[in-house]
Amino acid sequence: MARVLTPRAEDFPRWYQDLIAKAQLADNGPVRGTMVIRPAGYAIWERMQAEMDGRIKLAGAENAYFPLFIPESYLRREAQHVEGFSPELAVVTHGGGKPLAEPIVVRPTSETVIGEFMAKWVDSYRDLPLLLNQWANVVRWELRPRIFLRTSEFLWQEGHTAHADEADARAYARKILHEVYEDFMVNVLGIPVLVGLKTARERFAGATHTYTLEGMMGDGKALQMGTSHELGQNFAKAFDITYTSAAGGVEHAWTTSWGSSTRMLGGLIMAHGDDNGLRVPPRLAPTQAYVMVVKAGDGVAEAAAKLCDALRDAGVRVGFDDRVDTPFGRRAVDAELKGYPVRVELGPRDLAAGNAVLVRRTSGAKTPVPVADVVSAVLAALDADQQTLHDEALAMRESRTASVKTLDEAIEAAGAGWALVPWSAVGAEGEAKANAQAVTVRCLRRADGSVPDSEDEPDLVAILARSY
Amino acid sequence: MARVLTPRAEDFPRWYQDLIAKAQLADNGPVRGTMVIRPAGYAIWERMQAEMDGRIKLAGAENAYFPLFIPESYLRREAQHVEGFSPELAVVTHGGGKPLAEPIVVRPTSETVIGEFMAKWVDSYRDLPLLLNQWANVVRWELRPRIFLRTSEFLWQEGHTAHADEADARAYARKILHEVYEDFMVNVLGIPVLVGLKTARERFAGATHTYTLEGMMGDGKALQMGTSHELGQNFAKAFDITYTSAAGGVEHAWTTSWGSSTRMLGGLIMAHGDDNGLRVPPRLAPTQAYVMVVKAGDGVAEAAAKLCDALRDAGVRVGFDDRVDTPFGRRAVDAELKGYPVRVELGPRDLAAGNAVLVRRTSGAKTPVPVADVVSAVLAALDADQQTLHDEALAMRESRTASVKTLDEAIEAAGAGWALVPWSAVGAEGEAKANAQAVTVRCLRRADGSVPDSEDEPDLVAILARSY
Repeated sequence: MARVLTPRAEDFPRWYQDLIAKAQLADNGPVRGTMVIRPAGYAIWERMQAEMDGRIKLAGAENAYFPLFIPESYLRREAQHVEGFSPELAVVTHGGGKPLAEPIVVRPTSETVIGEFMAKWVDSYRDLPLLLNQWANVVRWELRPRIFLRTSEFLWQEGHTAHADEADARAYARKILHEVYEDFMVNVLGIPVLVGLKTARERFAGATHTYTLEGMMGDGKALQMGTSHELGQNFAKAFDITYTSAAGGVEHAWTTSWGSSTRMLGGLIMAHGDDNGLRVPPRLAPTQAYVMVVKAGDGVAEAAAKLCDALRDAGVRVGFDDRVDTPFGRRAVDAELKGYPVRVELGPRDLAAGNAVLVRRTSGAKTPVPVADVVSAVLAALDADQQTLHDEALAMRESRTASVKTLDEAIEAAGAGWALVPWSAVGAEGEAKANAQAVTVRCLRRADGSVPDSEDEPDLVAILARSY
Repeated sequence: MARVLTPRAEDFPRWYQDLIAKAQLADNGPVRGTMVIRPAGYAIWERMQAEMDGRIKLAGAENAYFPLFIPESYLRREAQHVEGFSPELAVVTHGGGKPLAEPIVVRPTSETVIGEFMAKWVDSYRDLPLLLNQWANVVRWELRPRIFLRTSEFLWQEGHTAHADEADARAYARKILHEVYEDFMVNVLGIPVLVGLKTARERFAGATHTYTLEGMMGDGKALQMGTSHELGQNFAKAFDITYTSAAGGVEHAWTTSWGSSTRMLGGLIMAHGDDNGLRVPPRLAPTQAYVMVVKAGDGVAEAAAKLCDALRDAGVRVGFDDRVDTPFGRRAVDAELKGYPVRVELGPRDLAAGNAVLVRRTSGAKTPVPVADVVSAVLAALDADQQTLHDEALAMRESRTASVKTLDEAIEAAGAGWALVPWSAVGAEGEAKANAQAVTVRCLRRADGSVPDSEDEPDLVAILARSY
């Protein structure tokens, strides 16, 4: 087969760009750092949204929508927040043909404007917890843009909640972390993320705790796939989110926020893609089975269409390709690029033998299957290949993760993958030293893999890596 | 019952504002003209999106996402387009802490940026038609904002398509008009819209034809609920969208665009709301049946929860209210405000008699129903009340529409509702005269109610009205 993409081993960033272009997932937008998400990419995002949205609603949060435009003064109310976001802001200075009295910021995130409304809506302890989420676009000016990973505008969900006390806020931030994000990433995206606590240096601007989910990409680097924050009372004090307690006193609420974005599309590509293109896990895939007419022939198109119906009736998301005017080889290369989990190829010779050919994207295996057995064979392949992609990603992570004892060893090991090292051997000073060599502390975990409440707990393990 | 809202007959605009606030549908945002869509309002929008999105996909269009930011120069490429939108633009002049070399416009609509990419993606006639849609926010600076109806930022879907010839573009613009918009508005929103052609004066900036769907509101005014445009070759020429035809020549494509927005939430309120609050048509309603525990009692909460399960199993979208600490009267008023189609009320006395009480929002009728029959009674009520709301809206429209012969009569009749008048009695000059009296030509139709191809066809009927 002719080489379609730059091989990963030759130039991973180039492979990534090639794949996005050739699989028609996205394009660069005309304003620097923006992107156009094309139908093939957007269909995957819609599936991500559907899976995430269901989990968010199960966790009790309700969707709402807050404005794109935020008065600049709102950002200044929380000192760390404005410091963190100021360098990334897009500012509207003219509206309706006139200069504005106060400049307006295009939201980089919505803690401030949502804080303002939480303050209006929360009155008594009976109004808590207040659990909100929105699906929206946000803008963070980006000097070194890369499609899906760092773009000046991206799409995301951002959850914002207010609670009566710290314990409830913490429990909810962790519920989202595990029941929404980790469950989705592991069981749908097939990416065995490591879940942990960010260090003070890596914390969200304005948070007291930032929890993260880190995935390993095909080049051994880490990608932050999502974060959940405890904001303590920082925003409640800045925006005056208070409530009357059952005892009658007036208290500040405790808030959280949590987000995941189109960056996950970048993670999907880099965790599962191979030199032939994307590989989409079956549970996520907008098209799970792609039925192809190999070439025209007596009854072939009809038999293929019947197979599509049978697969659809069995609950499979089906694509159909009967473009027999286009050479089959070119169509097969395109199907590989797009990463459909299973192809069902049907030509006159196959049909004469009563067969279709099942091609599995994960292994590349091609198996003739009697037409009557196609549905059950597809269902079995989709189930198995969901697991296969996860297990391959886990095996890669394990083979590229080294447990070491010292900071120098960890920085060395992070050249090829991830390093697990005692946090006591790193500390804030070691972290700065690692950063100077383009290595970051991705997160901290307890020895048993659980997520700590503080970086001051004893015996924590730090994960160090290069990252996106 | 205490008066909850300003009655419609007393002050319709005040009633509208009261309803939005008390049903907790939305709030004004901090930047003038922006809005916050609260969970109760957003849940309705999500149902609108789901119903519309399914129809858009059935019509063959694929979802994609184009950038929020558009270079100012793009808008200038189509002369009428820039003239139409310039007064409404929000302009970003600073990004990442620095002044920008070229000002950026926050999209008021996306014909220009999508045109740029259509030009890249379309090569041969085989690439046509190209059928795209996006769900997005847009910004049009608004001097006289009103929530849902005219806001500086709103949410919408905008479809953009490219075709090989005018006939195909026209057929598609009309397919969307009837199969997506009209079908949704009549059969889901329950609003008997009139569908017609806009006059040249009311046409979209850059279009050759604008088709519209006009709904009558409770005060007799018209609301434009959605539009579908033929753009001719205007944008294809401005953005160089060309293709190689089967014959080998290079041709400009023909494009369309079509949109519907959160404005439909305003239409829903004003078409169906009454003095007790919102009335949501059952097919649209996020909560179709609202099960309420009237007060605590032996086994009441359990019986109510069982009813919820039985309703859910029957495919009904269910809400549950067991907040027995809050006075029942207050909860019932709130349920009326929110417009849940059917309430199922269960108290100790009802349960002792083996009954629940079914309350229908449309008529206000309260009927005791044996617990075992609740599911079938709810299903029957939902079916019937979908039709009732539509028929009430139709009866109102008919009673407030006058067929007249002259422009003066039409302007007079538009003081109380809609006027049907021969277009030949109005014309461009009459239209200007009507506009001076705050009356507009909503659309033109043929005598048989079908949609004309041109305002120059003979025997057209003009609909004149005041409007939002």
